Amino acid sequence: MSEHALRPSPISPTVDFAAEGVQHGFLRLPYSRDDSAWGSVMIPLTVVKNGEGPTALLTGGNHGDEYEGPIALFDLARTLKAQDVTGRVIIVPAMNYPAFLAGTRTSPIDKGNMNRSFPGAPDGSVTQKIADYFQRTLLPLADIVLDYHSGGRTLDFLPFCAAHVLPDEMQEAKAFELVRAFGAPWSMKMLEIDAVGMYDTAAEDMGKIFITTELGGGGTATAKSAAIARRGVANVLKAAGILKGALETAQTTWLDMPDGNCFSFAEDGGLIEPVFDLGDDVKSGDVVARIYPIGRTGAQPLEVKAKMDGILTARHFPGLVKSGDCVSVLAAVVV
Amino acid sequence: MSEHALRPSPISPTVDFAAEGVQHGFLRLPYSRDDSAWGSVMIPLTVVKNGEGPTALLTGGNHGDEYEGPIALFDLARTLKAQDVTGRVIIVPAMNYPAFLAGTRTSPIDKGNMNRSFPGAPDGSVTQKIADYFQRTLLPLADIVLDYHSGGRTLDFLPFCAAHVLPDEMQEAKAFELVRAFGAPWSMKMLEIDAVGMYDTAAEDMGKIFITTELGGGGTATAKSAAIARRGVANVLKAAGILKGALETAQTTWLDMPDGNCFSFAEDGGLIEPVFDLGDDVKSGDVVARIYPIGRTGAQPLEVKAKMDGILTARHFPGLVKSGDCVSVLAAVVV
Amino acid sequence: MSEHALRPSPISPTVDFAAEGVQHGFLRLPYSRDDSAWGSVMIPLTVVKNGEGPTALLTGGNHGDEYEGPIALFDLARTLKAQDVTGRVIIVPAMNYPAFLAGTRTSPIDKGNMNRSFPGAPDGSVTQKIADYFQRTLLPLADIVLDYHSGGRTLDFLPFCAAHVLPDEMQEAKAFELVRAFGAPWSMKMLEIDAVGMYDTAAEDMGKIFITTELGGGGTATAKSAAIARRGVANVLKAAGILKGALETAQTTWLDMPDGNCFSFAEDGGLIEPVFDLGDDVKSGDVVARIYPIGRTGAQPLEVKAKMDGILTARHFPGLVKSGDCVSVLAAVVV
Amino acid sequence: MSEHALRPSPISPTVDFAAEGVQHGFLRLPYSRDDSAWGSVMIPLTVVKNGEGPTALLTGGNHGDEYEGPIALFDLARTLKAQDVTGRVIIVPAMNYPAFLAGTRTSPIDKGNMNRSFPGAPDGSVTQKIADYFQRTLLPLADIVLDYHSGGRTLDFLPFCAAHVLPDEMQEAKAFELVRAFGAPWSMKMLEIDAVGMYDTAAEDMGKIFITTELGGGGTATAKSAAIARRGVANVLKAAGILKGALETAQTTWLDMPDGNCFSFAEDGGLIEPVFDLGDDVKSGDVVARIYPIGRTGAQPLEVKAKMDGILTARHFPGLVKSGDCVSVLAAVVV
Amino acid sequence: MSEHALRPSPISPTVDFAAEGVQHGFLRLPYSRDDSAWGSVMIPLTVVKNGEGPTALLTGGNHGDEYEGPIALFDLARTLKAQDVTGRVIIVPAMNYPAFLAGTRTSPIDKGNMNRSFPGAPDGSVTQKIADYFQRTLLPLADIVLDYHSGGRTLDFLPFCAAHVLPDEMQEAKAFELVRAFGAPWSMKMLEIDAVGMYDTAAEDMGKIFITTELGGGGTATAKSAAIARRGVANVLKAAGILKGALETAQTTWLDMPDGNCFSFAEDGGLIEPVFDLGDDVKSGDVVARIYPIGRTGAQPLEVKAKMDGILTARHFPGLVKSGDCVSVLAAVVV
Amino acid sequence: MSEHALRPSPISPTVDFAAEGVQHGFLRLPYSRDDSAWGSVMIPLTVVKNGEGPTALLTGGNHGDEYEGPIALFDLARTLKAQDVTGRVIIVPAMNYPAFLAGTRTSPIDKGNMNRSFPGAPDGSVTQKIADYFQRTLLPLADIVLDYHSGGRTLDFLPFCAAHVLPDEMQEAKAFELVRAFGAPWSMKMLEIDAVGMYDTAAEDMGKIFITTELGGGGTATAKSAAIARRGVANVLKAAGILKGALETAQTTWLDMPDGNCFSFAEDGGLIEPVFDLGDDVKSGDVVARIYPIGRTGAQPLEVKAKMDGILTARHFPGLVKSGDCVSVLAAVVV
Repeated sequence: MSEHALRPSPISPTVDFAAEGVQHGFLRLPYSRDDSAWGSVMIPLTVVKNGEGPTALLTGGNHGDEYEGPIALFDLARTLKAQDVTGRVIIVPAMNYPAFLAGTRTSPIDKGNMNRSFPGAPDGSVTQKIADYFQRTLLPLADIVLDYHSGGRTLDFLPFCAAHVLPDEMQEAKAFELVRAFGAPWSMKMLEIDAVGMYDTAAEDMGKIFITTELGGGGTATAKSAAIARRGVANVLKAAGILKGALETAQTTWLDMPDGNCFSFAEDGGLIEPVFDLGDDVKSGDVVARIYPIGRTGAQPLEVKAKMDGILTARHFPGLVKSGDCVSVLAAVVV
Repeated sequence: MSEHALRPSPISPTVDFAAEGVQHGFLRLPYSRDDSAWGSVMIPLTVVKNGEGPTALLTGGNHGDEYEGPIALFDLARTLKAQDVTGRVIIVPAMNYPAFLAGTRTSPIDKGNMNRSFPGAPDGSVTQKIADYFQRTLLPLADIVLDYHSGGRTLDFLPFCAAHVLPDEMQEAKAFELVRAFGAPWSMKMLEIDAVGMYDTAAEDMGKIFITTELGGGGTATAKSAAIARRGVANVLKAAGILKGALETAQTTWLDMPDGNCFSFAEDGGLIEPVFDLGDDVKSGDVVARIYPIGRTGAQPLEVKAKMDGILTARHFPGLVKSGDCVSVLAAVVV
Repeated sequence: MSEHALRPSPISPTVDFAAEGVQHGFLRLPYSRDDSAWGSVMIPLTVVKNGEGPTALLTGGNHGDEYEGPIALFDLARTLKAQDVTGRVIIVPAMNYPAFLAGTRTSPIDKGNMNRSFPGAPDGSVTQKIADYFQRTLLPLADIVLDYHSGGRTLDFLPFCAAHVLPDEMQEAKAFELVRAFGAPWSMKMLEIDAVGMYDTAAEDMGKIFITTELGGGGTATAKSAAIARRGVANVLKAAGILKGALETAQTTWLDMPDGNCFSFAEDGGLIEPVFDLGDDVKSGDVVARIYPIGRTGAQPLEVKAKMDGILTARHFPGLVKSGDCVSVLAAVVV
Repeated sequence: MSEHALRPSPISPTVDFAAEGVQHGFLRLPYSRDDSAWGSVMIPLTVVKNGEGPTALLTGGNHGDEYEGPIALFDLARTLKAQDVTGRVIIVPAMNYPAFLAGTRTSPIDKGNMNRSFPGAPDGSVTQKIADYFQRTLLPLADIVLDYHSGGRTLDFLPFCAAHVLPDEMQEAKAFELVRAFGAPWSMKMLEIDAVGMYDTAAEDMGKIFITTELGGGGTATAKSAAIARRGVANVLKAAGILKGALETAQTTWLDMPDGNCFSFAEDGGLIEPVFDLGDDVKSGDVVARIYPIGRTGAQPLEVKAKMDGILTARHFPGLVKSGDCVSVLAAVVV
Repeated sequence: MSEHALRPSPISPTVDFAAEGVQHGFLRLPYSRDDSAWGSVMIPLTVVKNGEGPTALLTGGNHGDEYEGPIALFDLARTLKAQDVTGRVIIVPAMNYPAFLAGTRTSPIDKGNMNRSFPGAPDGSVTQKIADYFQRTLLPLADIVLDYHSGGRTLDFLPFCAAHVLPDEMQEAKAFELVRAFGAPWSMKMLEIDAVGMYDTAAEDMGKIFITTELGGGGTATAKSAAIARRGVANVLKAAGILKGALETAQTTWLDMPDGNCFSFAEDGGLIEPVFDLGDDVKSGDVVARIYPIGRTGAQPLEVKAKMDGILTARHFPGLVKSGDCVSVLAAVVV
Repeated sequence: MSEHALRPSPISPTVDFAAEGVQHGFLRLPYSRDDSAWGSVMIPLTVVKNGEGPTALLTGGNHGDEYEGPIALFDLARTLKAQDVTGRVIIVPAMNYPAFLAGTRTSPIDKGNMNRSFPGAPDGSVTQKIADYFQRTLLPLADIVLDYHSGGRTLDFLPFCAAHVLPDEMQEAKAFELVRAFGAPWSMKMLEIDAVGMYDTAAEDMGKIFITTELGGGGTATAKSAAIARRGVANVLKAAGILKGALETAQTTWLDMPDGNCFSFAEDGGLIEPVFDLGDDVKSGDVVARIYPIGRTGAQPLEVKAKMDGILTARHFPGLVKSGDCVSVLAAVVV
């Protein structure tokens, strides 16, 4: 169906995206339910505009249990002054706001995974309505898009900033320039196999310069990972000419996930013993984790092995693992 | 009521604690419920006995979301050979087994916090029945007791081994000797203010040599923390003369939690930004964390401040914090 | 897709809509689920037919927590005699029957809001199947349609009967004639902005004379509001020529909701203190409610203000309010 | 067991009850649980002290779904100035704070009904720990005690202030003097049959002057009922000499609940139709409500009848009723 | 504590146990809760009295998912005429009424297992209050007590009637006489090892003649098992002289459960394949069931073996089994 | 939409369907969720291939609470040797694996009823993704399809094997030949009225020879019903030429469900007393079950009557029944 045939979004902003200055407000999404017949989801956002210049759309909480982005963006929203900006900054610190309030990856309302919900639908579920609003209202306003991710409660990542390999070389080059500017300790070149429903793709398909991150995980943030997130967004806005000043440069190591062999999955559930930590060098064939059966003592653990050489880039986080869970992700250092 | 008046424990072991050799079995605790009229909780345990010598009682999973202990003990249970032992080792890798299966601090059956359930009761809740069995059957068999803890899903700790300041100087000295043998990177001298219901106290009141640990947290283990746990138990068994061989020594820093000023609590809920990481030096008056209101952008965060100088020893783990949560724990280095 | 292409409804009635006399029966909707592999939802209905004449379709429980309609209609269903009727009366006291049984606005089965589920679907969720049966079977049988509403558990309303401003002036005039006949203390002229999925619109689009009500709320009924509901349906059936006898007239005040300024929404959650009661005169700028933060004492409440002059026509009901909830609705008296 | 043998309360206040001036703070109750290992319940309170004089202890939220008390007390806490007070006012707007946060009668933590939990226990459930703190710390500080109630989500009451018939005539007389001062539209003389576990009794047994209220219900407050609550507490503090100024007098009607015949209970569940509203005169034998079976149309409703003459003083609130629910309470006017 | 010190039961019956004739009524147990502040549990009962004679107390639904007793007793309650009775029959078809309504073994209110709740407590949980009422009010009225059981949702039994081996030979002999009169296909002599909290023991300790049954299971009844239950109670009342007429005799086989070897428990969870059916002859060492691991295909099932020769008398019912579940019970035929 | 336009299935098998020999593996279906961001559903399967010959696709657990199929197929999967096979056998013992793990008819993830989910969708819910994989990958590989069913937790059936009356006489004849080979005690000729979404129809529409069973129910299996299932699949594979050897023949009685009169539904909920057992002869007008109201004693039960003569072939299983539940199914013996 053509987008023009879609009914209008039910979401109404309490801010004026064209107005100058700092506005703190909400995206109000009507949500009728048992505990509030005429209730709404109120998604906080801040718009800072000053004269002409590019628009940056900054988002955290695409998954509700990832915290570096919301920390950097709630902080930026309250401290950014109009006079420091050239152009416009739109800050949505918690994109899937119901999920963020619940501290869960997906929305407690509809189990919607925001990053698999694009392009969304104005008459769909709450998550789809939010996606549709980004698709049809916010993304078209943007020139550059920074979407923060981390591993969430069930995964842990080396801190990296990333962009996708894209068919448009110019668009790709600009994105990797911003990745470099972000200045995370690690940087990743991603080839998306299955991009169905992703915010990334929605933005890239409109020709926006899109970058993303994975900055830790486990459902927490550290002083270190929060600092990476805050420095990163400032660097990106400077690189885009929206903020003034020199980048706070930092060294980064470039990584690459070449193919499906980078993933190892559990074929049994149990108690997981990690054998390597994030950043460790792993060789193909190494045992990356042991899974102990927990029904009795004395049984042999299942060994999960690496299928390539690489750096341990992500790992299963909780102490118990279920059959089918991703146990480890390896990446190759780009030299 | 005198203990002698208590009815017998409903728990029946499938092992013989007096038998020589390696036995893998269960503590079977009848538990009638809607989904199993004549069901039981089956708590795995291993007993390894060889000749005369002291008995070590080794426990993990006192809280069900703490993993270094279970990893070290499931592994020890399957690898320990009778001929390596002088005396007896009783291994219960997951003491609050229903909590361990659920991955939660307390038991999903009765919300029982095992470490506040002693001395337990044979006709109480499931958690109380398990506590009673330790109180009246397992602890009396033991000479030394090692009970593993970590921070669980909601706290994170510097890795340390610890014992209590005790009225009996000899007992205390022996315990600290084992703490030193354990060989964690940090070691703690604990003065327990409120010992009501603790396993520690139950053991110490019987004159047992009792040590415990905090080895990380967040509801996960790392390769590093699991290695500390495994090396620690081997060292302790060697120091007790139950295993042969030299201790794998490691340097430790001694810490002390002098008074209630070591704790800072949240007086508001929200998104927490940690300002220090575990092991960092903090000065009295420093902001240790900021708590952002999450209902809107643009609001000032609440600052949580340190009330003493010290090392950041424990911290709130999840990315969201609730009013009343412990935000940080500082400890003083003992010089 | 054309309606003719739809598969038949899975619902089978146990009554014959063409038969003379009084029939009490069910709409049986097969619903296979974990607790009943071959179960059904049994929606009670009564059909009273006598000779030739118009058909009135009377419904309550469109939302499951609104009670004046079900009270009036369960009572009418058991007392209406065939000989008193000229034409036909179809009574469904609890349209969204699973929601009515649960006492909730939406269906506990699929969270379906009946009044946003039209035209429904024969192979959709349970709520959509019910909507489809009304769309394709019951509405086509009707000449006039009365659908009872109240505020439900989370809103409270002044008691009014209402109809919509319609493009067909004749249809609109007939509807307002019935509103007048209903004889509620207040009467409302509604301009529907967003009619997607409404039963009202489904009926009106077929050219039916459709009226509705809001008769109170809070998830209860009073002796007074129940009496308004009972008298109203008798008056409407008399005005339509289906029942004989004179209308029990009562005075009514006509209201109008001119635009979006009639609504005030909460931008913070907390304890709500209403400053006006239903029926009170409010001036633009008046504080209609205060919202106290509940995390601590001593903080300033948020003031919610009126954006127009008017009568307080609806208000948030529960003692606690959530960000995004509708706090108050004002209406202008039509003079 | 003698009270002196009880262990100390685990609750620590963040205020100093002996200090002069206005203090806003918390009762911090440690509460270790799955989602916060070292968490606490933070019960807000305000203490206002100025020189010598009596102490009033003011509480709302004894049941968590009753709102007039919390509204009056959150408001009083933020507006009361030290210089206006002679003596001391201790304000706890939400006594069963976890229940208040959840909007439920009882605590979501332990299902504790605060008003059946006295004298409480320092090592009991969360609700029992709060009761114990009132029993052993707060009540002993007080001279007069005002505890606000309303009907909550499932009952609705005529607004009245009340005190108990007591063995100590002086104590009783002082209490009824405060009831009169409170100035609710109705006033009640209560003879408590079953006082087990009540806060009222705990206070009265210590010789405190105790009054209580029922000011509405349904889980909401109105502008009218909130005003009664606010005026009442001001009047009471003036009558006690803690505040200066004249009482805002209002006329009151005195009621009496003579015996068990004042209650009518449902012996079937279904849809309830109230036949009388609060304040109506009812004669013995009158049908006070009808209960319609909701499984089918056409069935006779069960009639619930009055067993005495009286004023309808309380009624079942929700639109559905369950077998065993109290349907109505009648009271006799004292002439 | 002495029983005389207990406070009175909160339960009030709506029948008069001393009145002649047939009375259908309730035991009303006040139960204040979130969804009904002044609600009650209404336990249906029937009392039929005619002149002088013994009193039989007949109970079903001690566990809420066992149906032969409730079927026989709801039927007896509606059909028993006063003139057919000599003495008194007290019928409580669903003793743990909240459990019966929920179709669960234990009460959904407090997880109370009625048959482990005696002697109960008047200020305990709902289940304990019911037990206390039986303990202090109903059992003292009775001469003979018949308490129906079946296997419930998780066990299945051969249909038998049973009594306990008792210290008082006369009491025991009278009980076995009633077992014989009941006339189930199988009859059981039970030696209770752990009688703590049982209704059986409560009755026997008062010197009552107590018999019980196990008449099937799986959470259902069959035409056959319901007929056994109905014939059994008629026979027992005739044998007791309360009803007139000849017993409908049937042949029975006497069984005996000699010791703990009759039970086999699962030490692994999985998919259970029964190898024998109820009533089959099993030899010691036979595989009675296989438990397939369900995480993968190709793995060996665990074999559960018989530890004695006997008849398969009870078995685990659901298709999945959990570690610790009772898999089979064997009994020896008494020859 | 044409199937070719569908995106590829997200499911990846860990086996090679074209490889010779025995392979035990999984269908891995990525399933991102709150408790595993990069988790998967791992559906066990076994493929046994040996040379050229037909392919049999064998499935159990289409509904997750039906056990004869999983028992027969987990057993066949671990015992079938490649050399015994001519052609290929694909065994999926638990098709709706999440439902099977939960022991429920439908999937706990999405409430998907597998047998109403065909043809499925690669971007739908988890259940739809599994259906799509069978539709587009597994069914095309098959020549004959055997799908096991039983009554599940809420129905009980006479044990029968069945096939559908089909437009293609040759296809129908081959299916009934396999039904005869299966050798269940009863055999059924089914005329499907409403085949929307069924696996049966999906297979038949591709021209596959499809047979199914109902082998008992109640959420359990017996030694007898498991033996029927195991013998049946061996017979079918022999009849198809995939296994060698003679069929273990058994006598069968052919049944027929002529029209809707074979079903009786409950119009009231309550306690159900079955009057006939499975296999009994029932005459039109006979009471097949009584439903007792459970709110009080002394009320008349509702009688559910047979609407045709026949054999009781299926019945409601649980002891309580809800309005709308199927109470009984009768079938006519084909002579």
